[in-house]
Amino acid sequence: MEYRIEKDTMGEVKVPANAYWGAQTERSIENFKIAQDTNKMPKEIIRAFAYLKKAAALTNLDAGILPQEKSDLIGKVADEILAGKLDDQFPLVVWQTGSGTQSNMNVNEVIAYRAHVLNGGSLTDKEKVLHPNDDVNKSQSSNDTFPTAMHIAAYQTLMQVTIPGIEKLRDTLAQKSTDYMKVVKIGRTHFMDATPLTLGQEISGYVSQLNHGLKAIKNTLAHLSELALGGTAVGTGINTPPGYSENVAKHIANLTGLPFITAENKFEALAAHDAIVEAHGALKTVAVSLMKIANDVRMLSSGPRSGIGEIHIPDNEPGSSIMPGKVNPTQCEALTMIAAQVMGNDVTIGIGGSNGHFELNVFKPVMIFNFLHSARLIGEGCVSFNDKCAIGIEPITANIKKHVDNSLMLVTALNTKIGYYKAAEIAQKAHAEGTTLKEMAVKLGYLTAEEFDQWVVPEKMV
Amino acid sequence: MEYRIEKDTMGEVKVPANAYWGAQTERSIENFKIAQDTNKMPKEIIRAFAYLKKAAALTNLDAGILPQEKSDLIGKVADEILAGKLDDQFPLVVWQTGSGTQSNMNVNEVIAYRAHVLNGGSLTDKEKVLHPNDDVNKSQSSNDTFPTAMHIAAYQTLMQVTIPGIEKLRDTLAQKSTDYMKVVKIGRTHFMDATPLTLGQEISGYVSQLNHGLKAIKNTLAHLSELALGGTAVGTGINTPPGYSENVAKHIANLTGLPFITAENKFEALAAHDAIVEAHGALKTVAVSLMKIANDVRMLSSGPRSGIGEIHIPDNEPGSSIMPGKVNPTQCEALTMIAAQVMGNDVTIGIGGSNGHFELNVFKPVMIFNFLHSARLIGEGCVSFNDKCAIGIEPITANIKKHVDNSLMLVTALNTKIGYYKAAEIAQKAHAEGTTLKEMAVKLGYLTAEEFDQWVVPEKMV
Amino acid sequence: MEYRIEKDTMGEVKVPANAYWGAQTERSIENFKIAQDTNKMPKEIIRAFAYLKKAAALTNLDAGILPQEKSDLIGKVADEILAGKLDDQFPLVVWQTGSGTQSNMNVNEVIAYRAHVLNGGSLTDKEKVLHPNDDVNKSQSSNDTFPTAMHIAAYQTLMQVTIPGIEKLRDTLAQKSTDYMKVVKIGRTHFMDATPLTLGQEISGYVSQLNHGLKAIKNTLAHLSELALGGTAVGTGINTPPGYSENVAKHIANLTGLPFITAENKFEALAAHDAIVEAHGALKTVAVSLMKIANDVRMLSSGPRSGIGEIHIPDNEPGSSIMPGKVNPTQCEALTMIAAQVMGNDVTIGIGGSNGHFELNVFKPVMIFNFLHSARLIGEGCVSFNDKCAIGIEPITANIKKHVDNSLMLVTALNTKIGYYKAAEIAQKAHAEGTTLKEMAVKLGYLTAEEFDQWVVPEKMV
Amino acid sequence: MEYRIEKDTMGEVKVPANAYWGAQTERSIENFKIAQDTNKMPKEIIRAFAYLKKAAALTNLDAGILPQEKSDLIGKVADEILAGKLDDQFPLVVWQTGSGTQSNMNVNEVIAYRAHVLNGGSLTDKEKVLHPNDDVNKSQSSNDTFPTAMHIAAYQTLMQVTIPGIEKLRDTLAQKSTDYMKVVKIGRTHFMDATPLTLGQEISGYVSQLNHGLKAIKNTLAHLSELALGGTAVGTGINTPPGYSENVAKHIANLTGLPFITAENKFEALAAHDAIVEAHGALKTVAVSLMKIANDVRMLSSGPRSGIGEIHIPDNEPGSSIMPGKVNPTQCEALTMIAAQVMGNDVTIGIGGSNGHFELNVFKPVMIFNFLHSARLIGEGCVSFNDKCAIGIEPITANIKKHVDNSLMLVTALNTKIGYYKAAEIAQKAHAEGTTLKEMAVKLGYLTAEEFDQWVVPEKMV
Repeated sequence: MEYRIEKDTMGEVKVPANAYWGAQTERSIENFKIAQDTNKMPKEIIRAFAYLKKAAALTNLDAGILPQEKSDLIGKVADEILAGKLDDQFPLVVWQTGSGTQSNMNVNEVIAYRAHVLNGGSLTDKEKVLHPNDDVNKSQSSNDTFPTAMHIAAYQTLMQVTIPGIEKLRDTLAQKSTDYMKVVKIGRTHFMDATPLTLGQEISGYVSQLNHGLKAIKNTLAHLSELALGGTAVGTGINTPPGYSENVAKHIANLTGLPFITAENKFEALAAHDAIVEAHGALKTVAVSLMKIANDVRMLSSGPRSGIGEIHIPDNEPGSSIMPGKVNPTQCEALTMIAAQVMGNDVTIGIGGSNGHFELNVFKPVMIFNFLHSARLIGEGCVSFNDKCAIGIEPITANIKKHVDNSLMLVTALNTKIGYYKAAEIAQKAHAEGTTLKEMAVKLGYLTAEEFDQWVVPEKMV
Repeated sequence: MEYRIEKDTMGEVKVPANAYWGAQTERSIENFKIAQDTNKMPKEIIRAFAYLKKAAALTNLDAGILPQEKSDLIGKVADEILAGKLDDQFPLVVWQTGSGTQSNMNVNEVIAYRAHVLNGGSLTDKEKVLHPNDDVNKSQSSNDTFPTAMHIAAYQTLMQVTIPGIEKLRDTLAQKSTDYMKVVKIGRTHFMDATPLTLGQEISGYVSQLNHGLKAIKNTLAHLSELALGGTAVGTGINTPPGYSENVAKHIANLTGLPFITAENKFEALAAHDAIVEAHGALKTVAVSLMKIANDVRMLSSGPRSGIGEIHIPDNEPGSSIMPGKVNPTQCEALTMIAAQVMGNDVTIGIGGSNGHFELNVFKPVMIFNFLHSARLIGEGCVSFNDKCAIGIEPITANIKKHVDNSLMLVTALNTKIGYYKAAEIAQKAHAEGTTLKEMAVKLGYLTAEEFDQWVVPEKMV
Repeated sequence: MEYRIEKDTMGEVKVPANAYWGAQTERSIENFKIAQDTNKMPKEIIRAFAYLKKAAALTNLDAGILPQEKSDLIGKVADEILAGKLDDQFPLVVWQTGSGTQSNMNVNEVIAYRAHVLNGGSLTDKEKVLHPNDDVNKSQSSNDTFPTAMHIAAYQTLMQVTIPGIEKLRDTLAQKSTDYMKVVKIGRTHFMDATPLTLGQEISGYVSQLNHGLKAIKNTLAHLSELALGGTAVGTGINTPPGYSENVAKHIANLTGLPFITAENKFEALAAHDAIVEAHGALKTVAVSLMKIANDVRMLSSGPRSGIGEIHIPDNEPGSSIMPGKVNPTQCEALTMIAAQVMGNDVTIGIGGSNGHFELNVFKPVMIFNFLHSARLIGEGCVSFNDKCAIGIEPITANIKKHVDNSLMLVTALNTKIGYYKAAEIAQKAHAEGTTLKEMAVKLGYLTAEEFDQWVVPEKMV
Repeated sequence: MEYRIEKDTMGEVKVPANAYWGAQTERSIENFKIAQDTNKMPKEIIRAFAYLKKAAALTNLDAGILPQEKSDLIGKVADEILAGKLDDQFPLVVWQTGSGTQSNMNVNEVIAYRAHVLNGGSLTDKEKVLHPNDDVNKSQSSNDTFPTAMHIAAYQTLMQVTIPGIEKLRDTLAQKSTDYMKVVKIGRTHFMDATPLTLGQEISGYVSQLNHGLKAIKNTLAHLSELALGGTAVGTGINTPPGYSENVAKHIANLTGLPFITAENKFEALAAHDAIVEAHGALKTVAVSLMKIANDVRMLSSGPRSGIGEIHIPDNEPGSSIMPGKVNPTQCEALTMIAAQVMGNDVTIGIGGSNGHFELNVFKPVMIFNFLHSARLIGEGCVSFNDKCAIGIEPITANIKKHVDNSLMLVTALNTKIGYYKAAEIAQKAHAEGTTLKEMAVKLGYLTAEEFDQWVVPEKMV
């Protein structure tokens, strides 16, 4: 490969000749050879940086400390980044400095050097039209830009991927709940036969879970809307012009269309990422819900002949490389694996969040890496589960009817007529002798056949 | 020990002669010999049951399905339970059936039999004035009472213990922040010297964390305010009179003074406990904050001679059994251990919450056991940390001044004057040669001594 | 209450007149009002301290630095502690200093003062026959005694409670596996019908899991056998006589009957508790196994009429307060709740273990509290599950036979005869049309009825 | 893009014209659009499959059920996969069916179709020289191949990446420990000044931690060496020739050079992945150790002027985008972030492991994805930390000496001379009055200046 020489405050570094990045990015590549093929800094973060660099340039322009031309150039490259044109210019991994400084400098360098080229210069020119630190990073520090990028990326991903994914699944389940609101089926508690309910009622529980989960996520957005930008090195805002914090937050809000505001307390905003911990707690709650829902779906569809078999789900692919004709609830499996991942990610995020010290938390990259992983998995997992499974749920009426008709727990309807103890005796003896409840009830003389038929009506028990 | 014979639907059981409990409680003692000395069902749950049994009796009275006399008796024993008079009548452990049925029956039996004695009867009478199932448990199931008790106990503990504890600590720290708002000290990022801030600013970050944490907890209260009661066996509300759910929630709200309402969807309320998962997520967020705060306090107070030593905290006890005169940040240690416990409890609760199946989650006892554990630890831990540590935080002015005066990172103030690169050169050479910034700045000829004194003023950098 | 005055290096303290403890214990009660009713320092730790104090006294006697009389007195009180006679003298909670200094001093004080009384003195005497620090704590520090007590308590609990509990369950399951080795039943993968196996084979998987789990636990014992004692304050062994470390480990080994040795590296032994982290990792592995086994048992026994219903487990108690005659897999529920608890405890222990700093880890109490909790829960949980559930597992032959006979996955036996694709076609069409495999196989013309009967024999497929 | 038509038992599918994969792979791409850009099935698993497919072909050849030519072709493509020539043919993600069936079929299809092309055929030929199921998957099921691939990939990664990485760091630290064994420095417990030790002793604790961690990992290898292959669909080994299990394990052992054996119990091997849970528990233990070590290193190197500053670590890059000249302990940060990731992955793996049901655990992909992630992060993280940080650790003698000389805890040496209480008095008063220990000791009259100099010698206290 061909190289050119770049310099930073520590000296010279060889950089691939055509790379837009500079010395500090290259040092990070050399210094952190850890999972370089699979654990790149997420694209969502790079794009969030593009928003904030453009916003900072506009704010610096407003404040009269950056010339129009420089501000425009920064905005131009930022737009290229947002359009995905420079994706290969961000080679750094998550496992770098815990402040994300190197990714901030990667963005600063790419913007400065790409701007220089856009401006007609060459990468080998000694002086560039923009300086990575003094222009692109003006009025900023990694310590306030990286957490700002974290909040932008987290908020956007929740709004664009996670929430719509959950809502899509919620809507489908709500429709199914309505469709099957009259399908009376046996209830199960402790995996054991219980009193009946309808399939629609059962599914309504899932809908309610997802609605509560959506509320839980939305409750955390206010904290995520607070931006650290303007705190600079330690939260005091050193080297920023007056009004900078509020103005840059407004610019970011304009550019993203999301209600970002400046954080009231910048010291917290640099030193702690409780907003990420809190919001991921809501994602974990949703993961817990999804595990429950997907487990129910696969158990209700189990069989086809020796399981519960009360619902049918779509056959999407051959299920076995050895058992011919087998079909499996694979979407349930992907979704429950996702739930397990999110539950583990939650621990990583909590540990990262708890280990900030003094003026800075230096677990920033691992926290946002796990957050964005979870947010995407839940959003895309819900869409996949919805499109390839939930949408096709249908009751298997014959099995449902058989289970209700056989149930011993219909005896519960007799509690208010003959008391719990006599009712229990009927159920226990019917179970022991393998008879129906009605036969046993009459045999024991606790009620007549007519009374039984009048009192024990599954449809009235739901 | 003397015994009497009790019966349930499965047959006879020997019960201690004077125990108010009956056959089912006794069976549970026999069947679950697991951590019986240390893992009793929490008192908060027993008391929550007392509220709900009284409320159910009043609601059944309102509905005309329970006579006044029986309702009064139930209320009377419930009041005794709330007053702590019957604490030794609840011997069951957490590790029982996952629906908490046995603890529900424990309460039903104790109320029925204690009522019988209050009514002038004897424990050996065959017929009692109240029947545990048909009277005390009327219009109820374990499946809706236990989750109701979970929400009552969780909500109450948050309001009475957790939130006031956090607020107490928050108020003290807010006062400290105000008191020391002018004490300029060195900032630290990555554990390394950084630009200055004031001690009051540093502490204001903790205050902001706790304020956000309080908001996070309060955001989850709405979900916790929803009560399952009225859902009975599987959520359909079988064997309840009309209007029961709403009315019983109102009675509980009256008795507890908290804004409980009936859950909109009872199927979710039995089959999932996402409200507990969600609310504990907020507790975990606070635990993460407390870990950060307590770590900072112990590191800032480290020394006395070879540490950072910028604050003094109270000396509460001899710190070492071997090193004479040693004093340690023991309150920080208790609080960080609590944080670790809460972070682990969060995983237990998530796993429990994710494993509900069909119409019932049967990890109820372990979930609420861990929730209440965390809620108390945080509340009481914050009070202890507040009273024995935070309240006594004081700056050690000499050390603070020495650190600021020596700092190389004051050079940051020169960025906007001479650019990042030259400023870096000053700092690096001053570090290498062990001189002051000023000496090096002048030596390198980048500015005059007068300019240095004018531009580099720690007090203006905060 | 009546009090007496005690003193330590910080001054005077009022102590309950009859308490054997002294000033430092009392300070801890005052300073740590956190979960005082439920989170006492575990008894196992107090008893482990008794062993080590006795061993240290003997070692100091051997070294000629403690007179016989004092050594005897220490041993005498240690024996009383081991006999459980002084249980109420250890009132401290887990949430104290992270080194456990206060519990070490509690033991030192109780031994010194109780010895004084045994020796004919009075608690109000100014001089006591033993000094808590200079005699009872001689050649020791909290920093090496507490981790030593952790290893003693952990090792003993594993040997006496955990391992025997798991073995008991393993033995029962091994017997069941043998008993039912010929009972051919349907297999299930992905919750879906699969090729057959025998009930004995299915259970043999559980036996193998537990055997591997036992091996995993035993693999960690070597690390737990290493004792910190002799490292004193920071690992250097200051203030210990020559040969102390090795000798005191020998005495502890003698007293406990367990193969304890002195840790090769005392710096690690104080500053890190990886042995606890590692050993609990094995406990978590067993918890994971138990979750699997208990889940299978409850699903296999589900029904009685609308579930899988292939095994019967004992009916131990009425299962529902509202549904008469209901019986539930309550032992499975207790065991799976235990598994969830242990999995959460594992996180707490990991966080505690990761946060040691410099020469000392100060998460000692929370780590051992969680470790012992898990070790007991697994041991006692296995015994309960064994005695009240596993021991009574029996096949329900009628259901088992029905499921095998109906299975479509028997078609797998035809792969090697007619190829996977044709076999799949048979299964899919039989499923679609609701016929048997044999009917469809013949109808499609891929084989004759005779060939089918010869090739598809469930008993030959296991 | 151009397509060709492929078929499986469910019908026709359009596949990219030049792709070697077939219908089932393509279905999976369509059905699981979840994190397709970042969460591919790990390469290590694909290569492990190559080993096992080749081994199975050889074993089938040995058994006389696969012709030499077919076996050779399978081996040939397997070798291409191992050489990395077909990396782009494995597009599937982790979030698929929980048995990994689709990745197994992906491998089967690629081998079959690539073999056909190698054999001179064309991808559009209707009949191929090899059939994915009947030839490549002969004597196999996804249910035994995927867990076999899990063990191969896990074992190999531990041997090739994780263990060598840890050993490299261990060796460097061992050298540092030797180098600095005479450098007396202050000890710190509870972050507070304590008795002295040497820097070499301090570092020896880290070496001991890593040595124990290596032992812990190695203890788990035996379980990982057990292969599921031969269990086929449910563990019974249906459709395998006699002796297959043992022979195929031998072939895998030969091909990989690792001591693989056939699992004694195949039912466990399919239904549970406790070996993965157990081995990852050891990785988590190492993560906990690394967190401790990296934290110590960054705190010991903190400063340069207002921290502890007792060691110097290499300056690898400019540390701040705003603070000129700042250098940060970035390798410590990467390593502690890795520790947090591994600790969270451990939870995901535990949850996955606990949720197997009946004859199959269907959390296979998420378990191995997290396992391999952790194994690589630890291995590569240790190498990075070693090469860019540990190797350059050097004492900063001036600071070390100053801290020792100032220490009040040297007073501990007086315990055995004048007793703990008088020693404490000296330390407390010296602290209060800001004097040296010696001055205070003499002033209080407890010993002479000569005695002090004779008794309090830091070098003798280590």
